[in-house]
Amino acid sequence: MPHTARPAQKSFEPRNPDWEATVRGSFARQTVMTLIGAEMGALAPGHCEIRLPFRADLTQQNGYFHAGITATIVDSAGGYSGLTLMPAGSDVLTVEFKLNLLAPADGDYLVAEGQVLKTGRNLVISRGEVYAIRNGHATHCATMQQTLMTMHAKKEK
Amino acid sequence: MPHTARPAQKSFEPRNPDWEATVRGSFARQTVMTLIGAEMGALAPGHCEIRLPFRADLTQQNGYFHAGITATIVDSAGGYSGLTLMPAGSDVLTVEFKLNLLAPADGDYLVAEGQVLKTGRNLVISRGEVYAIRNGHATHCATMQQTLMTMHAKKEK
Amino acid sequence: MPHTARPAQKSFEPRNPDWEATVRGSFARQTVMTLIGAEMGALAPGHCEIRLPFRADLTQQNGYFHAGITATIVDSAGGYSGLTLMPAGSDVLTVEFKLNLLAPADGDYLVAEGQVLKTGRNLVISRGEVYAIRNGHATHCATMQQTLMTMHAKKEK
Amino acid sequence: MPHTARPAQKSFEPRNPDWEATVRGSFARQTVMTLIGAEMGALAPGHCEIRLPFRADLTQQNGYFHAGITATIVDSAGGYSGLTLMPAGSDVLTVEFKLNLLAPADGDYLVAEGQVLKTGRNLVISRGEVYAIRNGHATHCATMQQTLMTMHAKKEK
Repeated sequence: MPHTARPAQKSFEPRNPDWEATVRGSFARQTVMTLIGAEMGALAPGHCEIRLPFRADLTQQNGYFHAGITATIVDSAGGYSGLTLMPAGSDVLTVEFKLNLLAPADGDYLVAEGQVLKTGRNLVISRGEVYAIRNGHATHCATMQQTLMTMHAKKEK
Repeated sequence: MPHTARPAQKSFEPRNPDWEATVRGSFARQTVMTLIGAEMGALAPGHCEIRLPFRADLTQQNGYFHAGITATIVDSAGGYSGLTLMPAGSDVLTVEFKLNLLAPADGDYLVAEGQVLKTGRNLVISRGEVYAIRNGHATHCATMQQTLMTMHAKKEK
Repeated sequence: MPHTARPAQKSFEPRNPDWEATVRGSFARQTVMTLIGAEMGALAPGHCEIRLPFRADLTQQNGYFHAGITATIVDSAGGYSGLTLMPAGSDVLTVEFKLNLLAPADGDYLVAEGQVLKTGRNLVISRGEVYAIRNGHATHCATMQQTLMTMHAKKEK
Repeated sequence: MPHTARPAQKSFEPRNPDWEATVRGSFARQTVMTLIGAEMGALAPGHCEIRLPFRADLTQQNGYFHAGITATIVDSAGGYSGLTLMPAGSDVLTVEFKLNLLAPADGDYLVAEGQVLKTGRNLVISRGEVYAIRNGHATHCATMQQTLMTMHAKKEK
């Protein structure tokens, strides 16, 4: 095995011309994002970032961001990375995700990045990474693997 | 294979005589639980329940509890089921969890149950179930598998 | 919270009158089961067991069953627990699974049990347990959470 | 959020001067690798590749590599990526892994790559990718997230 096998890099073509408005509109309806103070950042086909400033009311027993809060933003980042590629009129549903916590989520803010790995007719597989930023230095604090389902609009079923 | 093999049912002996005060004290320091309105319920060696009443500011785009909020309470329920069995002075850390969402988390309140499956010197494996309760009827809406680490007190290392 | 919320116990109705022949026929075409010496055991709607006698050529570096072999039988047990409930003519595909290894898979044989938790139109969620049996004593050595997809027959799409 | 936060790229320093002989020796004792015909390929600190040629006795009901066989090689690739970084005299144990199947494992051979994400005193977190190669073209067919435990040698405990 002289060198590592690699697939061609995928680029993703959105099927919904209004993908960005669709995703930002859906995010705005996630009331929990307002509660915790999360903001949507960069958005591209197959990619989504969510940023969350530190607040003392988002923590676990040692004063770090609670793992469930980390999960909240990375689940949405992964889900919306998928929604960028779904047909107009459809919605996204998380089937499952698995989150490894690599380091304490201790920082001035967190950045969660969702990235689509694979799209199918009904299922989308994505990955998420979470970084804790302190004084401009990023610590990789969590990594996620996620399965999403496309909820097709009634008319196109 | 005439019948199903079954291991003897495990019962768990706490090693920390103050396990209940330890767990309830730690829960009280998880500020995010106050933010979302979660309450600790039944607690027993190897078992922990957390209850979360519905609020309109805890939802995703369709008005159900956000998967991250479901994750927040079941991660803590699983983690505290483990802490009931850890030595005095130690703390619990989530290494990873995997959550399958079985049905929309749509109810008057959620109940998350954490249950220890296996304890080792450093690691504890637990399971979590989440039920959405509407008019007294429970829907099983999520199931979790989780790995926890015991953070031993300095003195006993 | 005076007592634990519990959903009504589910019983599963097969939609394929030939579910047992379908499942046993599919298992017989999994050539890897013959290679490793696995046998299908008890089968019921939503439930499947697979048994694997110890062989010295199935091990990892310490002489226990390799985790991948444990995964092989529990993935099939979970998958076939799902196939018992799928429509005639459809096939089952594993979307993903997560396996926690609880104890060394050290025994005279392994028994893997798959059990459906939830069925939907396209997806089935199941759980798996693996026991290592030594002199009639069972050790719970692995637990799995799994997502399956129904591959519908062409005609019913 | 003008640009994506990224941690510095990690490079891994092995603590065992004989890491390569240790890993290749351990692989040689995994009898199941001989049974299925798997070979260890490239090895570097924090990285391990395993290659598996197609054989008709490694398949599921449709003639593709069985998901458990995919799991077998990627679990070992991930585990050995971790063992390259563990102290002399220690052994590696898989705590858990989660595998998403992205495409049928249909090819002339499979290549599984394990890569360490994070090392700690007792735990190592790794990722695995599996590619199916057909006529030199690689299809990304599975992705894994894994938690490993270092089994320290008795003397250094």
